[in-house]
Amino acid sequence: MRTNRLEAISDGVLAIIITIMVLELKVPTGHHLSDLIHTTGVGLLTYLLSFLYVGIYWNNHHHMFHLVRRVSGAALWANLALLFCLSLLPFTTAWLSESHYDRTPVIVYGLNLLAAAVAYLILQTTIIRQEGDESPLRQAVGSDVKAKVSNGLLLAGVLSAVAITPNGHVGVWIALACYIGVAIIWIIPDRRIDRLVHQHEA
Amino acid sequence: MRTNRLEAISDGVLAIIITIMVLELKVPTGHHLSDLIHTTGVGLLTYLLSFLYVGIYWNNHHHMFHLVRRVSGAALWANLALLFCLSLLPFTTAWLSESHYDRTPVIVYGLNLLAAAVAYLILQTTIIRQEGDESPLRQAVGSDVKAKVSNGLLLAGVLSAVAITPNGHVGVWIALACYIGVAIIWIIPDRRIDRLVHQHEA
Amino acid sequence: MRTNRLEAISDGVLAIIITIMVLELKVPTGHHLSDLIHTTGVGLLTYLLSFLYVGIYWNNHHHMFHLVRRVSGAALWANLALLFCLSLLPFTTAWLSESHYDRTPVIVYGLNLLAAAVAYLILQTTIIRQEGDESPLRQAVGSDVKAKVSNGLLLAGVLSAVAITPNGHVGVWIALACYIGVAIIWIIPDRRIDRLVHQHEA
Amino acid sequence: MRTNRLEAISDGVLAIIITIMVLELKVPTGHHLSDLIHTTGVGLLTYLLSFLYVGIYWNNHHHMFHLVRRVSGAALWANLALLFCLSLLPFTTAWLSESHYDRTPVIVYGLNLLAAAVAYLILQTTIIRQEGDESPLRQAVGSDVKAKVSNGLLLAGVLSAVAITPNGHVGVWIALACYIGVAIIWIIPDRRIDRLVHQHEA
Repeated sequence: MRTNRLEAISDGVLAIIITIMVLELKVPTGHHLSDLIHTTGVGLLTYLLSFLYVGIYWNNHHHMFHLVRRVSGAALWANLALLFCLSLLPFTTAWLSESHYDRTPVIVYGLNLLAAAVAYLILQTTIIRQEGDESPLRQAVGSDVKAKVSNGLLLAGVLSAVAITPNGHVGVWIALACYIGVAIIWIIPDRRIDRLVHQHEA
Repeated sequence: MRTNRLEAISDGVLAIIITIMVLELKVPTGHHLSDLIHTTGVGLLTYLLSFLYVGIYWNNHHHMFHLVRRVSGAALWANLALLFCLSLLPFTTAWLSESHYDRTPVIVYGLNLLAAAVAYLILQTTIIRQEGDESPLRQAVGSDVKAKVSNGLLLAGVLSAVAITPNGHVGVWIALACYIGVAIIWIIPDRRIDRLVHQHEA
Repeated sequence: MRTNRLEAISDGVLAIIITIMVLELKVPTGHHLSDLIHTTGVGLLTYLLSFLYVGIYWNNHHHMFHLVRRVSGAALWANLALLFCLSLLPFTTAWLSESHYDRTPVIVYGLNLLAAAVAYLILQTTIIRQEGDESPLRQAVGSDVKAKVSNGLLLAGVLSAVAITPNGHVGVWIALACYIGVAIIWIIPDRRIDRLVHQHEA
Repeated sequence: MRTNRLEAISDGVLAIIITIMVLELKVPTGHHLSDLIHTTGVGLLTYLLSFLYVGIYWNNHHHMFHLVRRVSGAALWANLALLFCLSLLPFTTAWLSESHYDRTPVIVYGLNLLAAAVAYLILQTTIIRQEGDESPLRQAVGSDVKAKVSNGLLLAGVLSAVAITPNGHVGVWIALACYIGVAIIWIIPDRRIDRLVHQHEA
């Protein structure tokens, strides 16, 4: 199967996820700046974080399928699993911001990010298995240090929010720092693939 | 008419259906795991089922149009009828989960799935009639045992929820088992078409 | 400008309009068939009508741009004007069904359909002016009897709802009959263009 | 990276932004024309303004990428930043119309438009830097008087709403006039690029 429709449905779902998260931002009832900050401040920051994550997945998805021409039925379902995980993000984002970063929503949000990361890994592995070890994607991914580090960070974040119970706030802030840190790591696009695409086309 | 825009509108509508179902998930009012399970548990499971069905239709649609180059006006409308049936899914899904699987919503949800199945069959028949008996799609579909079995199962599910009245719960659980069973049957992509595409291109 | 992105944004907006109208369907509070019919019956019928109209516009848009390769800046804005009119349809549909076909919402809905029809005509005229009298689209459109009849019917519907005041209900039902009649006229795809496309490619 | 998926995600997000703004239009509770005007009048006008802005950005985006074949990773993120700014428009639009053009929402709406304008400028600059001074886009943009004037107007609008405090209404109306004026300036598509595309292809 060619990848054009897989890319189309993925672009569609990601575009909608990004945009419907805005529907969760509550319009302030008052008309002053303090109302905006009070009602929407937390929601806006959380939206920015989730927007970055969806943007990162779109970016990496885009880079990955740049090196792939055909996909098997298994890859179609692995891709749908990734989209399913990401489609829950508007929900976990809404709970996170509505609770003003309470412990359980922070953990659930982190688990959502972890689930998406695992789904992405499965998708990547499925495609590489089908393309073979000589494929450009296989070489571009390499030892995939960046993914390992960021998944470790996400896991550490979730665990710290779960484990640090005496004073819940500390664990929560470590978790949030981990989530933000991972986003920062990935905003820089994957230069390994960029470079390979360059070589590949040269 | 070439199929590219038909595929574009279908991808668009399916992507949106998948994603707006998340908007029906209510954010828990409390901030504990029990609140999440209590408020959203049923909704999440139902969303997963509906997501699978939309994913299955997208997958089969994708496979079918891989073998078709041009469509008639009748096929455009048959496709819109399919999209109409699927577009009702967020609504019937919301009622199903809001009612915690009460009898009437379970029947209505099943009828919605059946209507989509019939619309898909009409679309497939319309295209095959236009392409002729020698067409690759005709040969790929074959005797279409899988569709017959799954449509029979859906019908059996709806009927059992309608008919088993002394103790309503039994009929409802049989119906839900049928709906889930059909989803499992179809998650495995249609290897007949996969194989044919392979031959066709070889 | 090539037409591919114009078609992409149009497909996107039309797909979303179709699907968000479902969000206006209220989930019944009870769990019986009577609750469904009472709460959602009118909404469902109105949604079907609006779905048909959006489907018709998509269909005709698809047929028209099949004969066009390039568009001017004016056509881009004429197309956006059409999308604006159609984007109001979820709103007028919601009011129509919420009011159970009261007089003013019926008139406003009709005006919305008329506005879309006029915008479509402007788009078509803009493109024909740019393509010239020898263009395939010009010949396909011909004297455009179908559009004239259906626009006349829409206008007649709106006027009857406005004018027949002694017993408001009569005017309203005439209007609804006109709106449904126009939909039926257009469900049959435009064979003139179908035929021409055929000739054009032969 | 080729630009097709960047255009796809942008078309998707812009199409959804345009359409979900309609969801913010409240359906009147009464069924008379006065109810419509009272409940939705302001919302409809504000929606029209925001629709125009999104249309303008789509139009200019379309024109710009007509002259670009490949984009770097930096341009992908600059484009996502633009989409982020525009995705906030449904929120600021809702606040603006809900407040019936109160001072703070007018300022926030203007800041949103300014942020989008700056993001667009950054995107354009990123692409030009990558394409070089001899690129068709560089020549098409020229000294970019139109962008400078309109950004100046937006800034003037925001500042007048901020500064003119003795009688708040005057500043607000100047601001709104500036926002509307900028929309009018841009509805006329960018003939510089139109012309260059023509030369480029001749």
